[in-house]
Amino acid sequence: MSSSSFAETPAPPYYAVIFTSRHTDMDNGYSKMADRMAALASQQPGYLGAESVRGADGVGITVSYWKDEESIRHWRENVEHKVAQESGKRIWYQNYIVRVSKVERAYGK
Amino acid sequence: MSSSSFAETPAPPYYAVIFTSRHTDMDNGYSKMADRMAALASQQPGYLGAESVRGADGVGITVSYWKDEESIRHWRENVEHKVAQESGKRIWYQNYIVRVSKVERAYGK
Repeated sequence: MSSSSFAETPAPPYYAVIFTSRHTDMDNGYSKMADRMAALASQQPGYLGAESVRGADGVGITVSYWKDEESIRHWRENVEHKVAQESGKRIWYQNYIVRVSKVERAYGK
Repeated sequence: MSSSSFAETPAPPYYAVIFTSRHTDMDNGYSKMADRMAALASQQPGYLGAESVRGADGVGITVSYWKDEESIRHWRENVEHKVAQESGKRIWYQNYIVRVSKVERAYGK
């Protein structure tokens, strides 16, 4: 989930989970958790890639791409991921919003 | 399209255009164009908001939200926007990918 690379997604349709977050000032353990979750996500069935950017103002957007809704549900219910989600809500994220969407078309350069 | 605020989107369904870009070193005129396009987009029919983050490494993610596909098509064909798109491809973006997706559900804190 490096911010310097684009996800190499297949031809649509597939799913995108758009995660927008505003971080608190508490960074304690966040980077380590984020790296671990990125590695763990990439091992899940149906994972297609991710793109992640965090600005200087503490707002971040991470988009992860998945084969189907079942893959997303499976990842959301992963036990280690659930612990990280709870820590995120309690410690690291002042606000966040998750949007689950179906990619219908894609183009670029 | 401030990076410090979340888009206040309605209940799904609606559309998300996920724009991931890697910028060149040429920043000449980019900020002014980006501000103008953000203002212009916000005046378009069906515009629901946007979230935008750009990291120190030149990679940016902008997600704009729209009522329906017709709104997205209308904005893509906007004459002033088309000029900006061409400049983006020619000058500012080393790579980019646009993914058009339908938001099916959303939740957050």
